[in-house]
Amino acid sequence: MSKLLRINTRKRTFTFEEMGEYAGLGGRALTSRIVNKEVPADCHALSKYNKLIIAPGILTGTTAANSGRISVGAKSPLTGGIKESNSGGVVSQKLVKLGIGGIVLEGKPEADAPFMTIKIDKDGVTIEDAPGDVLTDNYAYAKILDEKFGGKACVALAGPAGCQGLKASTIQFTDPDGRPARSAGRGGLGAVMGSKKVKALIVDDKDAPRVEYADKDAFKEASKKWVNILKGHPVTGEGLPAYGTAILVNIINEAGALPTKNFREGRYEHANDVSGETMAANIEKRGGKTKEGCHPGCIIQCSQCYNNAKGEYVTSGFEYETLWAFGPNCLVNDLDLIAEMDRTCDEKGIDTIEMGNTIAMAMEGGLLEWGDAPGSLALLKKVGTNDPLGRMIGNGAVFTADAYGVDRVPVVKNQSMPAYDPRAVKGVGVTYATTTQGADHTAGYAVCQNVLKVGGDVDSHGKEGQIETSKALQIATAAVDSAGLCLFVAFAVLDSAEALDVVADMLSARFGQKFTVADILGLGESVLRDEQDFNERAGFTEKDDQLPRWFKEQLPPHNVSWDFTTEELQGAKV
Amino acid sequence: MSKLLRINTRKRTFTFEEMGEYAGLGGRALTSRIVNKEVPADCHALSKYNKLIIAPGILTGTTAANSGRISVGAKSPLTGGIKESNSGGVVSQKLVKLGIGGIVLEGKPEADAPFMTIKIDKDGVTIEDAPGDVLTDNYAYAKILDEKFGGKACVALAGPAGCQGLKASTIQFTDPDGRPARSAGRGGLGAVMGSKKVKALIVDDKDAPRVEYADKDAFKEASKKWVNILKGHPVTGEGLPAYGTAILVNIINEAGALPTKNFREGRYEHANDVSGETMAANIEKRGGKTKEGCHPGCIIQCSQCYNNAKGEYVTSGFEYETLWAFGPNCLVNDLDLIAEMDRTCDEKGIDTIEMGNTIAMAMEGGLLEWGDAPGSLALLKKVGTNDPLGRMIGNGAVFTADAYGVDRVPVVKNQSMPAYDPRAVKGVGVTYATTTQGADHTAGYAVCQNVLKVGGDVDSHGKEGQIETSKALQIATAAVDSAGLCLFVAFAVLDSAEALDVVADMLSARFGQKFTVADILGLGESVLRDEQDFNERAGFTEKDDQLPRWFKEQLPPHNVSWDFTTEELQGAKV
Repeated sequence: MSKLLRINTRKRTFTFEEMGEYAGLGGRALTSRIVNKEVPADCHALSKYNKLIIAPGILTGTTAANSGRISVGAKSPLTGGIKESNSGGVVSQKLVKLGIGGIVLEGKPEADAPFMTIKIDKDGVTIEDAPGDVLTDNYAYAKILDEKFGGKACVALAGPAGCQGLKASTIQFTDPDGRPARSAGRGGLGAVMGSKKVKALIVDDKDAPRVEYADKDAFKEASKKWVNILKGHPVTGEGLPAYGTAILVNIINEAGALPTKNFREGRYEHANDVSGETMAANIEKRGGKTKEGCHPGCIIQCSQCYNNAKGEYVTSGFEYETLWAFGPNCLVNDLDLIAEMDRTCDEKGIDTIEMGNTIAMAMEGGLLEWGDAPGSLALLKKVGTNDPLGRMIGNGAVFTADAYGVDRVPVVKNQSMPAYDPRAVKGVGVTYATTTQGADHTAGYAVCQNVLKVGGDVDSHGKEGQIETSKALQIATAAVDSAGLCLFVAFAVLDSAEALDVVADMLSARFGQKFTVADILGLGESVLRDEQDFNERAGFTEKDDQLPRWFKEQLPPHNVSWDFTTEELQGAKV
Repeated sequence: MSKLLRINTRKRTFTFEEMGEYAGLGGRALTSRIVNKEVPADCHALSKYNKLIIAPGILTGTTAANSGRISVGAKSPLTGGIKESNSGGVVSQKLVKLGIGGIVLEGKPEADAPFMTIKIDKDGVTIEDAPGDVLTDNYAYAKILDEKFGGKACVALAGPAGCQGLKASTIQFTDPDGRPARSAGRGGLGAVMGSKKVKALIVDDKDAPRVEYADKDAFKEASKKWVNILKGHPVTGEGLPAYGTAILVNIINEAGALPTKNFREGRYEHANDVSGETMAANIEKRGGKTKEGCHPGCIIQCSQCYNNAKGEYVTSGFEYETLWAFGPNCLVNDLDLIAEMDRTCDEKGIDTIEMGNTIAMAMEGGLLEWGDAPGSLALLKKVGTNDPLGRMIGNGAVFTADAYGVDRVPVVKNQSMPAYDPRAVKGVGVTYATTTQGADHTAGYAVCQNVLKVGGDVDSHGKEGQIETSKALQIATAAVDSAGLCLFVAFAVLDSAEALDVVADMLSARFGQKFTVADILGLGESVLRDEQDFNERAGFTEKDDQLPRWFKEQLPPHNVSWDFTTEELQGAKV
């Protein structure tokens, strides 16, 4: 049976506990349950009262394809509400092999205490002072950890931004190549880790036992079906492997929903310059790599290595949302400079979606000219230094807007909107407005039904069906995040009648108790209930479940506007 | 009959309207009613949807002693809720003489539009481009206006901070000597004015008619009683004239309620260095002046001219809260440097209470050493420049705390606490928690009953009677703010059985309709209802009516802690 590892960061002590009341929970279900049960909703997110929870999913560690994701949860410094941020990387599967169902970082050291590293292996836990300068950029700091803990140490890192307590900070996870390129990106959880003076978790599963199955043959059989479902769908089997998520640039632009110049228009004339097709062409020319997974067992392979014109590695996990955020939203069409910005975000430990919006705020406020890509890159590089502009930028879009008196701020619950204008993709607008997480496309990706016509067909400009679609997706997503599955499996699951049964079969075979589709969806609902309960106690009301007032203004080219009432939107809550 | 002057700041047009549904309202009653009726609660405070209301009280313009205050209202950029900020100065009485019951600034010019001045005189309204550099410090800018509009122009000014849209910005009003030393200080209303590109209102009442009375003799008689009540009370008749509000330094320190080093202790060993007695001694030595009024007709005369060691004027309106904020709260005991900080706040147009707390946050975060007075002054001087630290500081305590990852932030509804530790003066803690305004002592000054034993005797460390005391004070204060009376009349009113009857008599004699004490208190309640209604629609809940969690920790020397539940506190709301 897996254990809960609790670490007192003030005393640098730890205990392994039975899962107890948390037994059977994993991923987002575990992080959100613990946060809701144990963190006072009214606490300051960087105070000793907050806790940072790190949890593999309940399918993680098995051979099930794309099941190696990890959830990180806490009260968010950015939104002030509950947060689950999800990442790839190699930490998750290793924790399961070490018998760890979740890690809880508690308490808070004195302000002048040194940062620490926490090493976890089959012999237990070792807490020491962190080596080197904790404000070192992440790739270089990962090398410092490699040297100390052995080649390609498997780590979760609070970057320079997290160590400074900034609200847009990520926790970076190393990928299979040892690069800290995978992010628990949203909601500033790096700052919670940094506030607890934890620089890095190092996880080593050497000589750990293998994961056990209640019925290995049944698992194998279900697992094979699962692979076929994923490989057989055009999005997970072809589109994502070939172009990554960047395939969406041209699609969303065509739909008139690509937010351009801080959500002023839905179409960008230079969109193709920053498209997946252009990215793939560059990769081919320059000897990069398409088709990489963020964790072992990934068969979608939407990641890549993107090289610069000299053929040198720049970044990986180079997503559509990142391209959009630094690109069309800021009137930038230089793909190579956007790649440098993506890398800089991974180096500093800052969220690319929040940062693209933040740069747009700096442009609104006159600190940068629209379209100034070199200026944007230079500004991002200030994060994690003592330059006050770095602290400003690293605190995100609302903060930067406030510094410059900007009132056009595309956020919900203080978190920046992703790459889909909610007026032109109303289903994802419903998700932005109503999810517990703040504006977040991954919480209920209605782009599927609205634009891609996966899992159904809902008119993206109309209101009909959007509330129901978003609600169902939010429930299913919470379950997917709890299983440790990659969200992209949803493309295939939505178009397959048997997919959820197969997931249930894998769970049944793993744990030796019968799981049904109803159990899976019930788990999703219970996650959302935990999250809504926390947010309510933190003071959120239905007034927080709405887009900023200026989205009532029309968006060209389709001249659509946001027209859901607050009352209507409540229908998307569980 | 007075008129409502509406100004469209985008078109630079204006209209004089009948008061209509707002007839009979003035001061805070008028600002809060208009904000609640006309401003969408969910708008961005710096957007075109917000409105800035400027309103003299209903007794203002008469010869009633201490009736010349002015209310400014809007949705607050700092709190996100409704705001009424109250100031002295000479604008208020002149507006009444010009027949203006209130001014409403509406709309918003384009981002690159020039700032404007709005001149109001008996011939109407003149709107022009503002002269000079709008980021000029306020005393020098007042001189620019004097030159353009004639000696000692009577103005309301958005300072450099307001013009930059910063959340701690004030609106500065000129005093009888033409110095922009009086502040509508709290809640960032200067930024609302600045967002509308209004640099200054200039009010000239030359050749304006005199204020009329329905029954002049009755007014004279009541007015004489009113003077006697104020002159006969030891606080308004002796204490405040001799030492100003700074008389409180030693009193509150003695009570163990003087927040020291960011609310860590209730007593400061060097308190006497920054006391009213020391201030008065300096003034006497250096040829300054005690006993000044902020507006004609003030008989309390709590203001002063404070000179430096060379005998040169530094500041006036040098309040206890300012002394405390930059002094004990930051471990600073240099009275002359604190005077320079006060002046700098008037120059930049920033709130001294917010700024003292902000400096404390900079000290918590390591940007400054505790007790570094020259460093604090230098930091304040950056406000209104292009230095990003200036933008940070000018956005207040929460903003600065967030920039440095500080979790010990003494705010309610994002607004910094004033100079009374709420654990040791629980009645004022109830006011901080429950007023619509964010932490604000002036909204219900229970220091009277808790410490000064004016108007009653309530144990400052106990819970008994505090809810009722704060509630009654909040209602009475809202009425006082609506009458245009100086809040300090409350000291006398609370100890006088007939004072409210006298106020009612003055109102009756002015307007020719019968006012009763019940009418006055009813007005106060209706103001609070407007404000609570707006805040509720803006998303505030009872969760916002509480102090930060860390106030549950004990405060030396009396080792008292904050122990009101959220439910109990709701009893202080109307």
